[in-house]
Amino acid sequence: MTVTLVAVEAARRILQGQVLATPMLPAPRLSALTGAEVFVKYENLQVTNSFKDRGAFVKLASLDEEARRRGVITMSAGNHAQAVAYHAQRLGVPATIVMPETTPFVKVASTKAFGATVVLDGETLAEAQRRVETIMAAEGLTLVHPYDDPHIIAGQGTVAIEMLATVPDLDVLVIPIGGGGLIAGNAVAARGIRPEIEVVGVEAALYPSMRNVIAGEDRPIGGPTLAEGIAVKNVGRLTRPIIEELVSDIILVDEAQLERAVNAYLTLQKTMAEGAGAAGLAAMLARPERFRNKRVGLVLCGGNIDPRILASIMVRELERESRIVSIRLTIPDRPGVLGSIATLLGEHGANILEVEHHRLFLDVPAKGAKVDVTVEARDRAHAHEIVQAFAENGYQPEKIETVKAIA
Amino acid sequence: MTVTLVAVEAARRILQGQVLATPMLPAPRLSALTGAEVFVKYENLQVTNSFKDRGAFVKLASLDEEARRRGVITMSAGNHAQAVAYHAQRLGVPATIVMPETTPFVKVASTKAFGATVVLDGETLAEAQRRVETIMAAEGLTLVHPYDDPHIIAGQGTVAIEMLATVPDLDVLVIPIGGGGLIAGNAVAARGIRPEIEVVGVEAALYPSMRNVIAGEDRPIGGPTLAEGIAVKNVGRLTRPIIEELVSDIILVDEAQLERAVNAYLTLQKTMAEGAGAAGLAAMLARPERFRNKRVGLVLCGGNIDPRILASIMVRELERESRIVSIRLTIPDRPGVLGSIATLLGEHGANILEVEHHRLFLDVPAKGAKVDVTVEARDRAHAHEIVQAFAENGYQPEKIETVKAIA
Repeated sequence: MTVTLVAVEAARRILQGQVLATPMLPAPRLSALTGAEVFVKYENLQVTNSFKDRGAFVKLASLDEEARRRGVITMSAGNHAQAVAYHAQRLGVPATIVMPETTPFVKVASTKAFGATVVLDGETLAEAQRRVETIMAAEGLTLVHPYDDPHIIAGQGTVAIEMLATVPDLDVLVIPIGGGGLIAGNAVAARGIRPEIEVVGVEAALYPSMRNVIAGEDRPIGGPTLAEGIAVKNVGRLTRPIIEELVSDIILVDEAQLERAVNAYLTLQKTMAEGAGAAGLAAMLARPERFRNKRVGLVLCGGNIDPRILASIMVRELERESRIVSIRLTIPDRPGVLGSIATLLGEHGANILEVEHHRLFLDVPAKGAKVDVTVEARDRAHAHEIVQAFAENGYQPEKIETVKAIA
Repeated sequence: MTVTLVAVEAARRILQGQVLATPMLPAPRLSALTGAEVFVKYENLQVTNSFKDRGAFVKLASLDEEARRRGVITMSAGNHAQAVAYHAQRLGVPATIVMPETTPFVKVASTKAFGATVVLDGETLAEAQRRVETIMAAEGLTLVHPYDDPHIIAGQGTVAIEMLATVPDLDVLVIPIGGGGLIAGNAVAARGIRPEIEVVGVEAALYPSMRNVIAGEDRPIGGPTLAEGIAVKNVGRLTRPIIEELVSDIILVDEAQLERAVNAYLTLQKTMAEGAGAAGLAAMLARPERFRNKRVGLVLCGGNIDPRILASIMVRELERESRIVSIRLTIPDRPGVLGSIATLLGEHGANILEVEHHRLFLDVPAKGAKVDVTVEARDRAHAHEIVQAFAENGYQPEKIETVKAIA
């Protein structure tokens, strides 16, 4: 195997004082949610808010004087880009980051803020990779691959050493798989320290690349996912054999499970997980029986989620729980009706969030109208009570999906 | 003084294994934001997501068999209620929590979920307090006061012992003041361990109760605040003299500063702070020169914020940064115009979030209309470029405030 426990231990010494030894804490509310005993490793508290700080620093620290002077290059639209840019800046190594042209502004800006040269090229990471090769050849830069590099894998593996140092008797680690660097390093470390521990992988159901290869499946790959940090089409050359040998199974999680996990981290643990960062918890929600009563270590591997998307997830969850509910009412189009509706809502203790009035719907009689009211309710039963009250007062209520542009 | 360092150290031994010794970590991004060296104590990671777990447990542990059997009572609409309910349940002590009738459903539900009996009474905490006295007398219950109790104060003070154990050379602690239990206990502990440390208090500008009393001021008290956890009208009988002696000054923070601090914790530290929990950071934003280049310890004392309010803060911050911008356009009311607008936005790389079409505004010619477009921009300069493009194409753009009901 290309990476050994000894290499991960060496990486840990290199990282001492360079990246955060992040907290590893019991999460009683997630334990109650999943029926297991859950511990969370908060890699979202690293400076660039993901575990990528570890591998990036170990790789940069491995370069000789000449290579540092010439500089490094990588292609990444995400956390790896920021981690390389940040640590290269700290070490005085020039960094060039190639990103697809479609990369969100915020990610470009935050990578530039760490002093890196950002080159926008290509529609996809594959196209960006060709650009990387051209620049590398022309400028003699060293590639910092996001996962297929023994230094990177060893660096990421230090997470498991810290987890087991805090909670030595974990039964299972649940770790997201993109290119496979995080899980490969951690599988080597964890199974090296504690051979009986299980390491379970997680992929977004839209990107089952590693599972396809290892389980010999042929699931389609692609589509927009909340877990863009692990939306990888190719598997690593170095990571694949490690995963094949040391990881017991790979669970696929759908978008609703990812969304629910992001929300659970936020509302129950008061911490911000990006989609990929919440994938381990999503796997527990997808397959609770797989983990029941076990001591499970989750790597909350990244916290870089767009605030707009996070706001939207939170509001959608409130809608799912019927704590926000939209009701379409059919009303006679005469003065005072809206007042009656508002009074009725007040009597039932519902807080009005939004009212929208439609006269132009074709299914409304010329002298009628429809009103959509969005209200805050205590819970599902309270929402039902409100709908009932409208029905009893002749408003023909229908519950509708609210589609909010902003949140 | 009613509480001593010895008492806080005893409380710390009582709390061993009962509450979390929460992480105390450097926050480099908050350091960059404030110009100081910032460390954060994550009390939002306690089981009930605030420091209140500490005092509540210490008080409950101090009761004799008979008092435990009879049970405890408190009045609180917030974190103290949940902490008492949770630890009383763990210790098998019956708990009665009196809350004002106006308490949000969620808080009532989460307190009941910990097995407490919840009594809703009165419009305010003061009215609830009278009900507490009646029930106490009738049922022989022990009061667990939210702050004016030596056990509570000593329990809360354990936060500072842990902070200084991790970072011994802090220059300043910045601590929110509601009733004053947290700051009183921590001032005793911190100044006891490290006499040269400064302890700075923070109050919401709308609730300057302690500052009024100590500085002899007469500022008005009241109004809706994001920091409802420290919106207290009375000061503690025990806490006031401790604060008077050991706290160097009390900074008042306005609502915008609180909101900005909540958002900074979320976007820069990936952690969820309620308004009161973010008050220390808000004080640093309010008075950066007061803290510049100092080693500052912030107590992120609570994370219980309504998801709907949090979503709203996030979106409002994006609006403030012009990353979400709403523009009202005047257009001729003929087919194809919306298509032209959408094309123009596409050419300028702006993502459309919402379009609203108005024909009934009185200032629009009968053959015209107004359209409000809400778009996502890269930054302020990009937003300006978009507005300019509309102006050059004759759409008479005006930037408007978006007021979103939900987020």
